[in-house]
Amino acid sequence: MNTAQALVARCEAKEFYDGLVLHRLIIPTGVNGVFGRGAEFEHVLEAFNALVSRAAASDGAEVCTFPPVIDRRILERVGYMDSFPDLCGAVYSFFGKERDARALSECIHAGKPWDDALKMTQVTLNPAACYPLYPTMTGIQPVGGRLVTMLNWVYRHEPSEEATRMQSFRVREFVRAGSMEEVLAWRDMWLARGLELLCSLGLDAHPDVASDPFFGRRGKMMSSNQKEQKLKYEVLVPVNSADNPTAVCSFNFHQQHFGSTFAILTADGEAAHTACLGFGLERVVMALFKAHGFNAGRWPDTVRQRLWP
Amino acid sequence: MNTAQALVARCEAKEFYDGLVLHRLIIPTGVNGVFGRGAEFEHVLEAFNALVSRAAASDGAEVCTFPPVIDRRILERVGYMDSFPDLCGAVYSFFGKERDARALSECIHAGKPWDDALKMTQVTLNPAACYPLYPTMTGIQPVGGRLVTMLNWVYRHEPSEEATRMQSFRVREFVRAGSMEEVLAWRDMWLARGLELLCSLGLDAHPDVASDPFFGRRGKMMSSNQKEQKLKYEVLVPVNSADNPTAVCSFNFHQQHFGSTFAILTADGEAAHTACLGFGLERVVMALFKAHGFNAGRWPDTVRQRLWP
Repeated sequence: MNTAQALVARCEAKEFYDGLVLHRLIIPTGVNGVFGRGAEFEHVLEAFNALVSRAAASDGAEVCTFPPVIDRRILERVGYMDSFPDLCGAVYSFFGKERDARALSECIHAGKPWDDALKMTQVTLNPAACYPLYPTMTGIQPVGGRLVTMLNWVYRHEPSEEATRMQSFRVREFVRAGSMEEVLAWRDMWLARGLELLCSLGLDAHPDVASDPFFGRRGKMMSSNQKEQKLKYEVLVPVNSADNPTAVCSFNFHQQHFGSTFAILTADGEAAHTACLGFGLERVVMALFKAHGFNAGRWPDTVRQRLWP
Repeated sequence: MNTAQALVARCEAKEFYDGLVLHRLIIPTGVNGVFGRGAEFEHVLEAFNALVSRAAASDGAEVCTFPPVIDRRILERVGYMDSFPDLCGAVYSFFGKERDARALSECIHAGKPWDDALKMTQVTLNPAACYPLYPTMTGIQPVGGRLVTMLNWVYRHEPSEEATRMQSFRVREFVRAGSMEEVLAWRDMWLARGLELLCSLGLDAHPDVASDPFFGRRGKMMSSNQKEQKLKYEVLVPVNSADNPTAVCSFNFHQQHFGSTFAILTADGEAAHTACLGFGLERVVMALFKAHGFNAGRWPDTVRQRLWP
């Protein structure tokens, strides 16, 4: 993109954000990437999530839900802090006594920074919907592997003015563990299914090979490595602007990374391969409002029938 | 409670936790107060939440949803850090450069503490479902005031072995703003309605005047003050043990605290009074499993018909 195109894209993104606010679909809070969701926004989000459940019903996934915070040791063990330190959200609290608490109060009322008054707890915000699952999978998996689905809140420290780049959002996730063949066949099946599902809602969706935003110079190498090996795919849809579409669904093949880290074993004793896919639920909802207008009551009948059959 | 009673209560609490795990209603993660929720647990939680919605349908509340993180300035402005510093969860992230990131990685891989490598972000975990709403209510309210309902994840830093004392859990909340008379009449109506709703599910529920766990010596005074003025009520139900019932619903009258802090004004220009009530959704679900057994399919017909009409 050249400078003029970038400016147009930024204006379009701002206009879209303002439209969401005007129609009370989102409620700003004064912090970029953190906003309330209005009733109609949630209504669409729940309908899309239910549509995903219907599409996957015959797969027989186990269902579970994890809270927005996870064991800090997960980030340490999977190497998250090596790759994405700038995106992390670690939870700190106050461990002091009476006197320290008084000093903290005074500091806050004087408008001074209070970073140093708190210490790290055992938990961090969860940066990827599937992370809390892996440590619970330790051990030998059933023959044919395992399939689990979740809807979790995730956190990324990347404040932005774009509606689609949130600090806190929900992901509807599926995780498959098994042999390499089982896992890749499942991932490919979902690549087609996810694309079809989004297109059936009148969205101009297309897939692409992608990479994660690894930190720093070493990160650039990791990104290009990931692209070369085609470990990550995304499905993109225009939301902020047509020229610069937004990833609304991502597919990650982890090879044996989680299998060996958490001793997730296949029936024949090998470290399991895993893959996951996640729909960024808020982004899908925003894509729908962008494509069909800010009033869901006036969306095309075909789209409404898919969402509310 | 004497020592023998306390020991019995602890054994009962442990037995209940183990029962939840055995039936895969909750999935431990290695951190106290942080666990996954199984499919049946969520199925009951959604049904109870829908029952609350039906009970309140004619009240016409606005619906919204806030993410698990909120603007840090809310905690600063409402005095949360003066009253509950030990319960807070502030979000820290990494703001350094390439070199700092390498040092952080080395520190983590060497198994050393990494508290000092991060700095405070603009957000904290949300400790009370209603907090993010108040700053969005600034201004003059409609005649008759306002009523809003939300289902939000909240965080309290109080790791515990008891299933009912979670670090991260969901609250179905209602907030009423208006004149003192409007707000208190609404609170009293819900005290009766909430009690009736829980009793209709075969729970042995009873109300009580309550207080918040304010920090330190000054906190003790604030707690007894709060009790004297009857600003907080709770509905209690046996979950861990019959002798030591658990609060599953709490009602708070804030007088003009939030009204004046955030300039929430009634139609005649006064700082609005506010009150809120919240069902601790996980606790209600646990109370149901405690009362009727670990298999929801075998619960009494009357209870099942209320939940899944």
